[in-house]
Amino acid sequence: MSVSPNVALLIGSLRKESLSRKLAVALKEIASPSLALDIVDIAQLPHYNQDLEASVPQEWAEFRSRILKADAVQFVTPEYNRSVPGVLKNSIDVGSRPHGKSVWSGKPCAIISVSPGAIGGYGANHHLRQSLVFLDMPALQQPEAYVGGAAALFDEQGRLINESTREFLTKYAMRFASWIERNRLH
Amino acid sequence: MSVSPNVALLIGSLRKESLSRKLAVALKEIASPSLALDIVDIAQLPHYNQDLEASVPQEWAEFRSRILKADAVQFVTPEYNRSVPGVLKNSIDVGSRPHGKSVWSGKPCAIISVSPGAIGGYGANHHLRQSLVFLDMPALQQPEAYVGGAAALFDEQGRLINESTREFLTKYAMRFASWIERNRLH
Amino acid sequence: MSVSPNVALLIGSLRKESLSRKLAVALKEIASPSLALDIVDIAQLPHYNQDLEASVPQEWAEFRSRILKADAVQFVTPEYNRSVPGVLKNSIDVGSRPHGKSVWSGKPCAIISVSPGAIGGYGANHHLRQSLVFLDMPALQQPEAYVGGAAALFDEQGRLINESTREFLTKYAMRFASWIERNRLH
Amino acid sequence: MSVSPNVALLIGSLRKESLSRKLAVALKEIASPSLALDIVDIAQLPHYNQDLEASVPQEWAEFRSRILKADAVQFVTPEYNRSVPGVLKNSIDVGSRPHGKSVWSGKPCAIISVSPGAIGGYGANHHLRQSLVFLDMPALQQPEAYVGGAAALFDEQGRLINESTREFLTKYAMRFASWIERNRLH
Repeated sequence: MSVSPNVALLIGSLRKESLSRKLAVALKEIASPSLALDIVDIAQLPHYNQDLEASVPQEWAEFRSRILKADAVQFVTPEYNRSVPGVLKNSIDVGSRPHGKSVWSGKPCAIISVSPGAIGGYGANHHLRQSLVFLDMPALQQPEAYVGGAAALFDEQGRLINESTREFLTKYAMRFASWIERNRLH
Repeated sequence: MSVSPNVALLIGSLRKESLSRKLAVALKEIASPSLALDIVDIAQLPHYNQDLEASVPQEWAEFRSRILKADAVQFVTPEYNRSVPGVLKNSIDVGSRPHGKSVWSGKPCAIISVSPGAIGGYGANHHLRQSLVFLDMPALQQPEAYVGGAAALFDEQGRLINESTREFLTKYAMRFASWIERNRLH
Repeated sequence: MSVSPNVALLIGSLRKESLSRKLAVALKEIASPSLALDIVDIAQLPHYNQDLEASVPQEWAEFRSRILKADAVQFVTPEYNRSVPGVLKNSIDVGSRPHGKSVWSGKPCAIISVSPGAIGGYGANHHLRQSLVFLDMPALQQPEAYVGGAAALFDEQGRLINESTREFLTKYAMRFASWIERNRLH
Repeated sequence: MSVSPNVALLIGSLRKESLSRKLAVALKEIASPSLALDIVDIAQLPHYNQDLEASVPQEWAEFRSRILKADAVQFVTPEYNRSVPGVLKNSIDVGSRPHGKSVWSGKPCAIISVSPGAIGGYGANHHLRQSLVFLDMPALQQPEAYVGGAAALFDEQGRLINESTREFLTKYAMRFASWIERNRLH
């Protein structure tokens, strides 16, 4: 019997009521048991500074260790100023260093961008993809996931109530599971 | 007699011996007195989190106030993972909020990307430009400034010793001063 | 009495019923008389090939001459495959050569991307902006113009019937006129 | 005995002495017999215009048919104005239509950008990648291939004379062959 891949789930917004967080929580439930999604906190990571490598902050060490153990990575993020939120990009920077010891290398991944507006975080989504090329993380291409108009998708308790989004995420999770399967072999 | 524009100088790397910092320090000297460049620290800014707006961190308040007073902004940055360093992007995110109160709006700006490699931080440079469109910050277009092979440009004390880079920065500063002049009027 | 700036209007789609063309025609009327928009055909330009510079195709010569006479440039374009349509990019390439003789240099410009989908051609819009940096064409930043859901904006005769789009374009044209005024002086 | 994958080789420059063409010819030889690279001409493709689908130009039909038969695609391209040459983008647009009949879908691919300058066509390389996401073409991530200073790599007959480039291309071709193998299975 095969074991579900362990997927680190990174959320690009820190606020409690974030639409990205609600979407991530919904995805976690929908994707189970095919994918074992586990939220990894990025809020406590000090800004990357190479001088700190001499005495690595504990938060960096724990984060790096956590990502190393993952089979794959799922990003769910808002767009800040037409790009990736600084806090999410910082977690990528922390995991990518020191030189030659990136914890990201070779891990299959996927991106969902989330926005209250129509454009669905397109700018953040594709800027993140550019980093993933360098990090050598095979990134799911289709279906692309730009979740727009996201404020209307959840009820007051933050539960996903939009059926077409639920169907999309179900299909998305299946495609991501196949993508991980294909790319884990190597 | 006209007064030199006050330019906030943001550096995308935190390490002490950073090539971007050395370049920024050289630019500050070269551009004087046409431009009054003043380094604004971004290391202490807590990660952006909208929930904190209820009780704004002092570092955010000081940073926002400092940018508001500037006539223009100069970014000098390395490339991390083919994009803008998280710490620099975080400073942009902090300055852009809360909604409707961005401190960046309308300020002319310019970008120098710096790298030990050949590509000169091109990826960071253009990702930053995409944010500047949204922030409505008129960005100097020419000369583009991708400073590659940067490790060889400085002596052991961190002083710029490459003459063609010095000449480039002299011309660049003049163009930026003209750009600020044109865009301050409006 | 000041004269309206002459603005070359380039449309990224060749089909007759193109949404971009309809939008361009509407903009031309709305912007008049502040801006004199004039559609410049790009359909007949042979693919750029440096070898042809030895005996420049007449279509290239006419196009270059036409752009040279313009005070500014307005791009209205669909997105093809998350980027600029090849035919529009080819016109940019033709105008940019031979080396040192770009007809684009210094001309203020603006972009409207148009799409039947929700994202409004964001990918084409920003890829085009990256070229504009190199071409040294000051590009209007705000308001950004991503026209989504465009199929519903026109009647059967192709006339703009959506009032909020009309209002947006009216404001947009005023901002573009100011942008041209600011940047023509230099 | 396994058969070498048939790889369509698209070159983004039309001039005879193009550096991209020289690099492509060298790659074709180096990659053989692991990969059977075959140059596909894009010079004769009429600009994409949806109205022509009613009576498809023969050049489009032949091109689409040729790509459909390929197991994979290799792009070798210069950068024009910080992006993909119009002529290459047009070939992508032609192959992607009509809607639902893209000939690109699912084909593994790789990109080499080539430039006489230091930056190695980075802008073209990554703009092309953004299209590949939409086209669902799994794109080789590492090694990234930005070939800068390309004028010095060839002798007067156009033969590759730079040994480190030859070694790089040898390794690159092996990685691309593995990438095709992994992605052909699906």
